[in-house]
Amino acid sequence: MEKVTIIGMGMMGASFALALKRAGLAQSVCGVARRSAALEEALQKGIIDCGTTNIGVGVRDAEMVVIATPVCAVMNLLSMLSELKYTGVIIDLGSTKQAICEIAETFPQLRFVGCHPMAGSEIPGLIGANAALFDGAPVIITPADNVDPALLERVTGLWEALGCRITFMNPEEHDFSVAVISHLPYLASVITMNTAAELAQDDPGIFSLIAGGFRDTTRISAGDPVMWRDICLTNRGHILTALAKLKSWLNDVEQAVESEDSDRLYNIFQTSQKQRRTYIPKNGK
Amino acid sequence: MEKVTIIGMGMMGASFALALKRAGLAQSVCGVARRSAALEEALQKGIIDCGTTNIGVGVRDAEMVVIATPVCAVMNLLSMLSELKYTGVIIDLGSTKQAICEIAETFPQLRFVGCHPMAGSEIPGLIGANAALFDGAPVIITPADNVDPALLERVTGLWEALGCRITFMNPEEHDFSVAVISHLPYLASVITMNTAAELAQDDPGIFSLIAGGFRDTTRISAGDPVMWRDICLTNRGHILTALAKLKSWLNDVEQAVESEDSDRLYNIFQTSQKQRRTYIPKNGK
Repeated sequence: MEKVTIIGMGMMGASFALALKRAGLAQSVCGVARRSAALEEALQKGIIDCGTTNIGVGVRDAEMVVIATPVCAVMNLLSMLSELKYTGVIIDLGSTKQAICEIAETFPQLRFVGCHPMAGSEIPGLIGANAALFDGAPVIITPADNVDPALLERVTGLWEALGCRITFMNPEEHDFSVAVISHLPYLASVITMNTAAELAQDDPGIFSLIAGGFRDTTRISAGDPVMWRDICLTNRGHILTALAKLKSWLNDVEQAVESEDSDRLYNIFQTSQKQRRTYIPKNGK
Repeated sequence: MEKVTIIGMGMMGASFALALKRAGLAQSVCGVARRSAALEEALQKGIIDCGTTNIGVGVRDAEMVVIATPVCAVMNLLSMLSELKYTGVIIDLGSTKQAICEIAETFPQLRFVGCHPMAGSEIPGLIGANAALFDGAPVIITPADNVDPALLERVTGLWEALGCRITFMNPEEHDFSVAVISHLPYLASVITMNTAAELAQDDPGIFSLIAGGFRDTTRISAGDPVMWRDICLTNRGHILTALAKLKSWLNDVEQAVESEDSDRLYNIFQTSQKQRRTYIPKNGK
């Protein structure tokens, strides 16, 4: 492609820019962001070829626009692109899809396909940018029922060229799936980190003793609060289902510890060991 | 040392044997285990120099005995070593210390020092054995008030020679600290894995879409059920305190999602981000 415009110069947008360039898929990558400082830094680092805080200017002549912002901003940007009568291909990288795809359907003239690469980093901004972020990553594509086949083929081809593994879902299936495999572990990680910090507030020195378990379990709790807030606001139902089940397991564990129920504790822990080994075969990192 | 005997040929015992040999600290390492198959495998792999299922035989002439079993077995073994009138140095690697140290105090003739290296792996047995497991790892030592200074110096020197960072605590402080930094994240990991598996039971294919977040958050849920059962049985009070706080944070998150409380969600997530960055400065793995 001659020109691709990426809206949002955070970790995801910058990584996508680097991946496009590395794969030789775009001659010119234009970045759009609210803060000109982010654009200047991205320009200096060679992540983008041009940058602007003006969306109208940024998308002009672009064959494709990639929206790499938190979910609620994606929804506003679709409306702006519709007002701008943008006619190129539009994809987003947002973490939930139902709310976004419902908005997109109200702008049938937009050539939009919702996408969600299952990759990320808790290290924010350009420091977290990584040209290899999408290598081998699963990407869920949630095309509209009446999507133009040529458009879908083009978007699919792009992800394939970036080395991703593509799965198609409808937005509802997508949102349920990510509630289970992404939003649930994030929220568990958050409550674990906040609990530990509160319990250790009189003696934070104990964190110097942590091993890999604490480090790994709490890693994603350092994720971007705005991104995760938007996820919770746009995937409320499925997340509440997951949290209710999480609370039920927490009550089970608590009761077993409380009553010193040796067999029950063993069973709960054997279940998690078995499930982890069954579903996540590569145990190591 | 001429002969060191390690009781327990799981991941920890085997890793300790390898670490001792690598550091040149023992001319001969003898393994004691209930299953002779584990001993044969350890012998074949050169992890130990001799092996026996008979503790009396195993500890004979050993300068030091290292108990590398789950906590409840440690307590039984101290009693057995007392009956055997073993006079060498004894350390254990158990995950909780109060129950063990209380038992040890009832055998004042044993030359025992409680130790807890903050290192491990969810990969069980000899496959998980790793000579480098203790490199740079924190080790908590919980000596009795009336410990023989020469004995303590010897045990301290051993851990230093293995490259560990030593911290002294009393058993009560230790058990509170590990409830926060080890038992809490394990139990959070377990309930996350069990929740996800239950939610995905009709469509386990969604696990093929996981990214690093799910993988990291659930990694330790594959740990040894017996080890963790014993931990819960011997650190009940502190674990219940941690679980109560975890439930309180879970309720907070649930309520904020339920009521679509955008500010509250942002604050909870900003708190975890800030705490993680403050207390666990090396974000990456």
